[in-house]
Amino acid sequence: MPEDLDGAVAGIIAGDRRALAEAITLVESTLPEHQEQCAKLLTALPVQEHIGTRIGVTGAPGVGKSTLIEAMGMHMVRDGRRVAVLAIDPSSELHGGSILGDKTRMTDLARHPDAFVRSSPSSGTLGGLARRTREAIKLCEAAGYSDIIIETVGVGQSETAVAGVSDVFLLLVSPGGGDELQGIKRGIMELADIVIVTKSDGDLALRATQSVGEYRSALSFLIPRYSGMPSQVVPVSAHSGDGVDVLIGIVRDRWARLHSSGLLTQVRATQLVDEMWVAVQDGLIEAARATDALSLDVLTHDVARGTTSPHAAAAMIIQAVKRNTSSA
Amino acid sequence: MPEDLDGAVAGIIAGDRRALAEAITLVESTLPEHQEQCAKLLTALPVQEHIGTRIGVTGAPGVGKSTLIEAMGMHMVRDGRRVAVLAIDPSSELHGGSILGDKTRMTDLARHPDAFVRSSPSSGTLGGLARRTREAIKLCEAAGYSDIIIETVGVGQSETAVAGVSDVFLLLVSPGGGDELQGIKRGIMELADIVIVTKSDGDLALRATQSVGEYRSALSFLIPRYSGMPSQVVPVSAHSGDGVDVLIGIVRDRWARLHSSGLLTQVRATQLVDEMWVAVQDGLIEAARATDALSLDVLTHDVARGTTSPHAAAAMIIQAVKRNTSSA
Repeated sequence: MPEDLDGAVAGIIAGDRRALAEAITLVESTLPEHQEQCAKLLTALPVQEHIGTRIGVTGAPGVGKSTLIEAMGMHMVRDGRRVAVLAIDPSSELHGGSILGDKTRMTDLARHPDAFVRSSPSSGTLGGLARRTREAIKLCEAAGYSDIIIETVGVGQSETAVAGVSDVFLLLVSPGGGDELQGIKRGIMELADIVIVTKSDGDLALRATQSVGEYRSALSFLIPRYSGMPSQVVPVSAHSGDGVDVLIGIVRDRWARLHSSGLLTQVRATQLVDEMWVAVQDGLIEAARATDALSLDVLTHDVARGTTSPHAAAAMIIQAVKRNTSSA
Repeated sequence: MPEDLDGAVAGIIAGDRRALAEAITLVESTLPEHQEQCAKLLTALPVQEHIGTRIGVTGAPGVGKSTLIEAMGMHMVRDGRRVAVLAIDPSSELHGGSILGDKTRMTDLARHPDAFVRSSPSSGTLGGLARRTREAIKLCEAAGYSDIIIETVGVGQSETAVAGVSDVFLLLVSPGGGDELQGIKRGIMELADIVIVTKSDGDLALRATQSVGEYRSALSFLIPRYSGMPSQVVPVSAHSGDGVDVLIGIVRDRWARLHSSGLLTQVRATQLVDEMWVAVQDGLIEAARATDALSLDVLTHDVARGTTSPHAAAAMIIQAVKRNTSSA
């Protein structure tokens, strides 16, 4: 990160990828000095007139997220859009970053002058992940990217964080097989605006058509995220490209409706306030877990055995936090 | 409530309904002196050797919960069981108690010597409701009730609290119509161990059979609450009694499997620890909302407008709680 704040801001606005990449690294840093620099940088960025289309994408490993994102991204850049892909990657914690991996996965898109592909670790709390993702999106938008695709493999709470910062949230599923088999977590289907049945080609075409029907039926039992905008199911073959244009059309249409109705402004304001309360909750629970005024292990054991009531134990923990005796 | 603790304990154990009813009133009271008496009473009760079967029941208004619970309860008492029904009733806050209402709803059961029917308000936090419900269950078990049915109409967070204290959780739905139309909240279907299609008789019989198939298909997409115990869908006609025996058989079978596998002990220990953390979270968020060190309204407005970052605002709120400057 350049010491020079003005230089960094100018670089990002001018679309300098290196300046953008460095700023995102700052967003991800847990060092207090970086967080301070980061807050300054975000404040120094001009307020965006044009807001990007924020598209969240999740699905089990192997379902074809990268292939679809590459197909979508290439379609978008051909339409004259500038596309940023932020991959929230649990593996990057383990393997020390997988930026190369992503660049390898999305070869054409990563090389395209109008696209930017970046992996970020998914570590930390739900609130922390939501913050970093939202800040990275803000940086990409300042750098002139009009479509921001946020990808997550869906381990831990990352889908919830990604759904919370997305305007349109896509869930990718394979044709056939219950989702139990696909390892889709509870509640994820209810966050999805669009369920995409991938690999809808060749031998799997018939199976995919069946799956589309099954998902439509299943989704009819769930309350959509935005009232008046029921969830949709779309078959796509990222390999042949079939369905990708239809999918993008649906995403554009949904976003336009959110935008023109004023719902988007409202949704984003709600997202920010929700993010504040998630961060309050995370911070306070963290303080509670770090309290050294009492032994949490002993207390938990007593509660589990039934010798201390959960509420008596909770009252003790709350008092410890309020007395600020936590080590956090 | 008798001043005499030993008398109260003896009364409850002897199966005196008045003593049980008075103790539950104490559990529901928000007065500190009552809560203190209540804690003493719960501690004084002997540890239960036999644990009851805790059955949660939810569903939209008008779906037939009372009719089904009466049919189930009468079946159970005929089997030699003693049945307590705890109805978590959001309306009782508004109308100053609806015990009479419930007694009118479940006429035969409420009059049966081996049954106990009680309505409780659903006011307060999720943690508070979970506490009161769990304590009321404990009192009923001490009074010798072997089947505890906890009913909630599912407004606010009451289903989550009820599911959290239940061994088996039942969701009642009407034949036909998506659940959107039935007003079932997000995530509730995922808590259900058994989905019951009510009114499966007469003109609706065919529609009910269809619904059973649709729900089976929809549930196959969700991960069951207990691994290895997939959710089940059962058609029931509470009026004719068809299916009630099958339903009770399934409940008994599921419970027996939970019990013999040791999962029940584990589940209940987890429920208690979860309840502790929910109460910690509720208490801390309550303290955060009550903080008078800063104006939450102004802060929320600034966050919604984007002039203050959600995380900067959260940090201020957390500090205010830790400094114990809240008025709560």
